[in-house]
Amino acid sequence: MALKPSIPKGTRDFSPAEVLKRDYIFGTIKEVFKLYGFQPLETPAMENLSTLLGKYGTEGDKLLFRILNSGDFLEGVSESELQNPDHSVLSSKICEKGLRYDLTVPFARYVVQHRNEITFPFKRYQIQPVWRADKPQKGRYREFYQCDADIIGSDSLLNEYELIRIIDDVFSKLNIPVAVRLNNRKILMGIVEAAGVSGRFSEIAVAIDKLDKVGMQAVEEELVGKGIPRSAVESLKNILEVEGSNAGRMEKLKQFLVNSETGKKGIEEMETMFRLINSDPPSSEIVFDLTLARGLDYYTGTIIEVKATGVNIGSICGGGRYDNLTGIFGLEGVSGVGISFGADRIYDVLTLKEGFSSLGTSASKVLIVNFGDTELQYALRILKILHSHGISAQIYPDAIKIGKQFAYANSLNIPYVVVAGEDEIKGSEVTVKNMAEGSQTRISIEKLGDFLTMQT
Amino acid sequence: MALKPSIPKGTRDFSPAEVLKRDYIFGTIKEVFKLYGFQPLETPAMENLSTLLGKYGTEGDKLLFRILNSGDFLEGVSESELQNPDHSVLSSKICEKGLRYDLTVPFARYVVQHRNEITFPFKRYQIQPVWRADKPQKGRYREFYQCDADIIGSDSLLNEYELIRIIDDVFSKLNIPVAVRLNNRKILMGIVEAAGVSGRFSEIAVAIDKLDKVGMQAVEEELVGKGIPRSAVESLKNILEVEGSNAGRMEKLKQFLVNSETGKKGIEEMETMFRLINSDPPSSEIVFDLTLARGLDYYTGTIIEVKATGVNIGSICGGGRYDNLTGIFGLEGVSGVGISFGADRIYDVLTLKEGFSSLGTSASKVLIVNFGDTELQYALRILKILHSHGISAQIYPDAIKIGKQFAYANSLNIPYVVVAGEDEIKGSEVTVKNMAEGSQTRISIEKLGDFLTMQT
Repeated sequence: MALKPSIPKGTRDFSPAEVLKRDYIFGTIKEVFKLYGFQPLETPAMENLSTLLGKYGTEGDKLLFRILNSGDFLEGVSESELQNPDHSVLSSKICEKGLRYDLTVPFARYVVQHRNEITFPFKRYQIQPVWRADKPQKGRYREFYQCDADIIGSDSLLNEYELIRIIDDVFSKLNIPVAVRLNNRKILMGIVEAAGVSGRFSEIAVAIDKLDKVGMQAVEEELVGKGIPRSAVESLKNILEVEGSNAGRMEKLKQFLVNSETGKKGIEEMETMFRLINSDPPSSEIVFDLTLARGLDYYTGTIIEVKATGVNIGSICGGGRYDNLTGIFGLEGVSGVGISFGADRIYDVLTLKEGFSSLGTSASKVLIVNFGDTELQYALRILKILHSHGISAQIYPDAIKIGKQFAYANSLNIPYVVVAGEDEIKGSEVTVKNMAEGSQTRISIEKLGDFLTMQT
Repeated sequence: MALKPSIPKGTRDFSPAEVLKRDYIFGTIKEVFKLYGFQPLETPAMENLSTLLGKYGTEGDKLLFRILNSGDFLEGVSESELQNPDHSVLSSKICEKGLRYDLTVPFARYVVQHRNEITFPFKRYQIQPVWRADKPQKGRYREFYQCDADIIGSDSLLNEYELIRIIDDVFSKLNIPVAVRLNNRKILMGIVEAAGVSGRFSEIAVAIDKLDKVGMQAVEEELVGKGIPRSAVESLKNILEVEGSNAGRMEKLKQFLVNSETGKKGIEEMETMFRLINSDPPSSEIVFDLTLARGLDYYTGTIIEVKATGVNIGSICGGGRYDNLTGIFGLEGVSGVGISFGADRIYDVLTLKEGFSSLGTSASKVLIVNFGDTELQYALRILKILHSHGISAQIYPDAIKIGKQFAYANSLNIPYVVVAGEDEIKGSEVTVKNMAEGSQTRISIEKLGDFLTMQT
């Protein structure tokens, strides 16, 4: 009985061609992270559920993949718990571990656990998969990679500026024009305060976050529906709809926030950021966007979101400042700021823009034809010469018809085929076939390594 | 309330210094895989349990990490199943997915699932973590990386030979002298047949596999205890204890196996392998070891095991030929052969032999001292110059005491600190401090990039 093989929904196999493209993205991001002095960190796929639960809201808790305890997982479950089973109580009894949901919480856990070995400010990058039991749909997977860089232990705005330069460098290298939108949670808090509805910040932030997608009227309706007074909604609307240059909007905002200490602090931070940015303008478009709220509760200062210009794909990078992420693990007052690149969406943007076209996808540079036992020693000698020149090369493993061996080279995009039969062997030569051009060159075996090194 | 942060037992965090060392190992292995024309593949961490169960024996099934179904996982579980719970029945009802246990079964599953898109012979490498609910102990983890290379769709012994060259290349590059032990399952089967106990092959192979650790007497006792006739045990003992050169032992074995077709085929394969090996002897020691059995049931031909010489650490690489791995997924008659490098043990060997000493561990090449707002523009200009030269560099984010900034550079092994205060700025210069030598150089900012590019 043969099983029909498949993989869990929302997960993916990555074929050789896809791995090469993904590695190009990861490699580019990693290179820039390193250039700025970030150091690599890796944490386990499994974390204790006590580390993960309660960090991503009630919805997030539901999206955690839980791992069944090994051995007799029912040990410690009482009869009554089994007879009247409540699946959330039961799951916490039979599962102690879960798969990581993001890289930020494991990073905070690591920092607290290893605080005595770490030199602060700690600049770390981390590129690993995360898992979420979300409903799979186009562009949303249950296993996907995050590429994070965070600086923890410094509240200098220079860190924010550095992250913006990193974003600019990464997308310049990937040849993706982007718009970087910036806002500051303190400004949003100030606006809510100035509108006289301080106590409703979270709900208002969630509503504003949707502005982009649903438009102002729907946001107004949502806020009124939630019982926010009409006058406050009007006031919020007026300030959110202000148009003009970054600097112009900043001025209007200053007047609006004149009585909010938090708001004024936010403005001051944003002005410092723009001074740094304008002192050496990056190639990306940088926009102060009051309507940028971002859902994550732990942000307390700058928030950042990046979209590719000219394509209709969501945010490809985002982040912000958090003043107390490590507090939940017992280390208070440590400020951090970080960004996360979304590899899958960057992949989609590059696919749309044909940004992978210059990547080589060949399995090796050379295939050596296999003529059978008599010629094998000579073929092995060729293989060794090519490998010693650092040239990726393989002998076809079976002495099948030469046409089939050429077909193999063709289908793997191998650009050169080396033929060495009786005749070539006699003269200590080889025939090199250029697959793209169809041309052939016969040269001595001694010159082969240098010859193929020169060919691109 | 602060949680005391920890990670699940048997799992590990990898600090920046550890990631660098591990990446050196992975990078070396990957480079050799690519040189031989292997292509990268990645499969999901989670597989359907139907893919994994029954592939690793009863013991293996128990070591699978199972993932609790999302949502109401008790849906579909009957009341009677809950009242008389059997944990193996229940676990299969509440869990559909498990974490991958190795890279071989997911590879077989991939090959069958994508057989119409794959060009055979398919040479793939895969470097990913696997998870096993083994009892954690020194050197044994619940999450660890495997580095596999397999060729599937060709039964040529050239593939085996290529894998041995890969082993030799990898350990030469890593500067680890190794002994590669070879055997062939067909020879073992022949011996068991010649001893007249064909039906007991699996048990005998398991017992022989322990010879290394427990000695011949214990193996004899185990076999007799299992009811293998004393005469057969004696016969097995005599042939297993034959000493001498690879060729000498092969000759004795030929006489012993003269009536076993399977055994003679095994000898023939082994002789072909040694002809290839001896035609261009690798730097590793290659030993024909009759007592090498390896536990895995799916091997049918050559088996390979590698140990570092001069250190008492177990096998650091192993593999073999399997004639029907894809059969279980419905694709019969596809032969493959593969090897797997154990990154953790290689790490231990390199640590013992101080093989990491030449690796750089600095967070960046340069730290630029932060003197505060007035000097910041100049510091940013320096940063930009260094980055444009591809030099990893960072500005200390806060304008704290200069001594503390130097301490930061020290503790992160940053070899150069650039100082640019009022005086340097006036003359468009910088002072570069070499941290190891304690020396200082004052040069113009224009020359800085080239100057630091030259310094190692």
